[in-house]
Amino acid sequence: MRRVRAKPLEGFATAVFEAAGTPSDIAATVSSMLVMANLCGVDSHGVLRVPEYVSEIDRGQYKPKARPKVLKQKGATGIVDGSWGFGQPAGIMAMQLAMKKARVSGVGTVLAIRTNHIGRVADYTELAAKNGMIGFGLTNGGPGVAPWQGRDKLLGTNPISFGIPGGEEDPVVLDYATSVSSAGKLEVYKSKGKKVPRGWVQDAAGRPSTDPDILAKGGSLRTFGGHKGYGLNLVVEALGGALTGQGVADEFNGQNGTFMQAIDVEHFIPLRDFTRDMDKLVRKMRASKPAEGYTEVLVPGDPERRSMLERGRNGIELNDFVWGALMGVAKRFGVNAPETA
Amino acid sequence: MRRVRAKPLEGFATAVFEAAGTPSDIAATVSSMLVMANLCGVDSHGVLRVPEYVSEIDRGQYKPKARPKVLKQKGATGIVDGSWGFGQPAGIMAMQLAMKKARVSGVGTVLAIRTNHIGRVADYTELAAKNGMIGFGLTNGGPGVAPWQGRDKLLGTNPISFGIPGGEEDPVVLDYATSVSSAGKLEVYKSKGKKVPRGWVQDAAGRPSTDPDILAKGGSLRTFGGHKGYGLNLVVEALGGALTGQGVADEFNGQNGTFMQAIDVEHFIPLRDFTRDMDKLVRKMRASKPAEGYTEVLVPGDPERRSMLERGRNGIELNDFVWGALMGVAKRFGVNAPETA
Repeated sequence: MRRVRAKPLEGFATAVFEAAGTPSDIAATVSSMLVMANLCGVDSHGVLRVPEYVSEIDRGQYKPKARPKVLKQKGATGIVDGSWGFGQPAGIMAMQLAMKKARVSGVGTVLAIRTNHIGRVADYTELAAKNGMIGFGLTNGGPGVAPWQGRDKLLGTNPISFGIPGGEEDPVVLDYATSVSSAGKLEVYKSKGKKVPRGWVQDAAGRPSTDPDILAKGGSLRTFGGHKGYGLNLVVEALGGALTGQGVADEFNGQNGTFMQAIDVEHFIPLRDFTRDMDKLVRKMRASKPAEGYTEVLVPGDPERRSMLERGRNGIELNDFVWGALMGVAKRFGVNAPETA
Repeated sequence: MRRVRAKPLEGFATAVFEAAGTPSDIAATVSSMLVMANLCGVDSHGVLRVPEYVSEIDRGQYKPKARPKVLKQKGATGIVDGSWGFGQPAGIMAMQLAMKKARVSGVGTVLAIRTNHIGRVADYTELAAKNGMIGFGLTNGGPGVAPWQGRDKLLGTNPISFGIPGGEEDPVVLDYATSVSSAGKLEVYKSKGKKVPRGWVQDAAGRPSTDPDILAKGGSLRTFGGHKGYGLNLVVEALGGALTGQGVADEFNGQNGTFMQAIDVEHFIPLRDFTRDMDKLVRKMRASKPAEGYTEVLVPGDPERRSMLERGRNGIELNDFVWGALMGVAKRFGVNAPETA
């Protein structure tokens, strides 16, 4: 295990991406978003993606120099072409365009197509929230999840996210897979040699399993909350797969079909009235009595904010598996290892 | 137990509402939507609401003659004032206006305020789906649900719904409470003298319970899928409570703060391309292999469609509790009981 502070880790990732042919601005953006995921405690979307992205460049899936562009605009909608470059700049462009549309029309919806992995969807919805808007985002993905009552690996982990502005209180930011667990989280368990909790995954016959490697053995992830999470997963297939034309279920063509929406609060109610109510809601939750067996009530975004404080102070823990993979690309490109904390 | 066909039941409910001072067109609309809920198997939103709405008229909460009106329009947004009449006409007006906005701008978002109970949200999102649009709707409600890890009854059951058009296949229509169960479903269990499944509700200390009457004893409903359903519940508080100005959590002012959105598929992709992919998705789900212990894989909307076929053929079962309540209002207003099947 190594502990590395955010800044040197970001600098390291940027240097690796640059060495792999990525323009500096894109390398810096992607690196800061990956490190932010680590800071938030979402290691599945953190720097363990650096060697993964590099190997995607190697096999030609990622065009490191490609830049996103606006392909089409109509009314309060738009489509961004990710040009098969890094997904993050395409995601940012899509949400920024959605926000621009929302300033005019009250609500804007922009899709991103031909994109690679866009990272945490919360990065984009929180961008909206920071600008006094409600952000709604989702992205389709490759198949790893079985339908409810089913056993076939047909659906993506299909995350959705909302970012909702607060006033004096923090924004409410949720971002989760519509499966109980993401595939990335299984990787984290696997890299730690741990079993996954019951209910997360099932074997090839649809029987519960605790094996973090079950996907490789024909198993599948389960949707969260039974048929309810399954329904939401299909919404992501529809908006992220069918509406984008990127394909549905196991015919999904690419890595992420993305839907971004911004709602301008001011079109409906003065922002200060809205955030006053959101502050009230957040305070009521945090001040409410915990159920037996718990010590506190949180709001979505709190665990990430706590992790940021802790990891901002103490650095980000990287286990030997991740550290080894990072050192592999470091050696290949002649990039210095980041200073450890 | 009585069995009544849809038509006579609808006629009966219409006559009761008319006798209680409701204009014929509104009485007919509300009755057909309640009976549709029964046909779909969603008895919690069916004709058991008839005596409830009547008593709301008695206490002045419902103004039976009131009609909704468009209060404000701006860009692709609008606000409908329900004028404290029946909620259903306000819900229809909101989704129709959202669809009109979406035809022009690609996406339209309309709120409904000062409304009473709007019924099943799926009625509105399915309206969008039937018109080649994606419908997204949600509505805030009175407190009955505890936050995740909490015990206080602070949140509404806060349903959300999506309606997504199909081509040759049925639309995908989901509509569910962000709690495991709605309060209405507990009523159904109570009226049958049955215990509710474990995990649905908790007692005043936050311990699991199976008592369908636990809400009256200080207990609360739980969010579905743990923190994930809780996050979605807070989104409904934000969009249905804060954005509408109808109030959040236990300061909720009224019965439903409603958010309706329509997305015009054609702004992004030809409708036939979209529905071809949706058909493919639906067929893949239904044709996939069930997990051990199950015999089939469904898509959201299938259980309702099956129920409609069965109840359309055989009539709607009304238990003695519901039948007795209906006979109560029948007697009061001198309305004939519906013919039984």
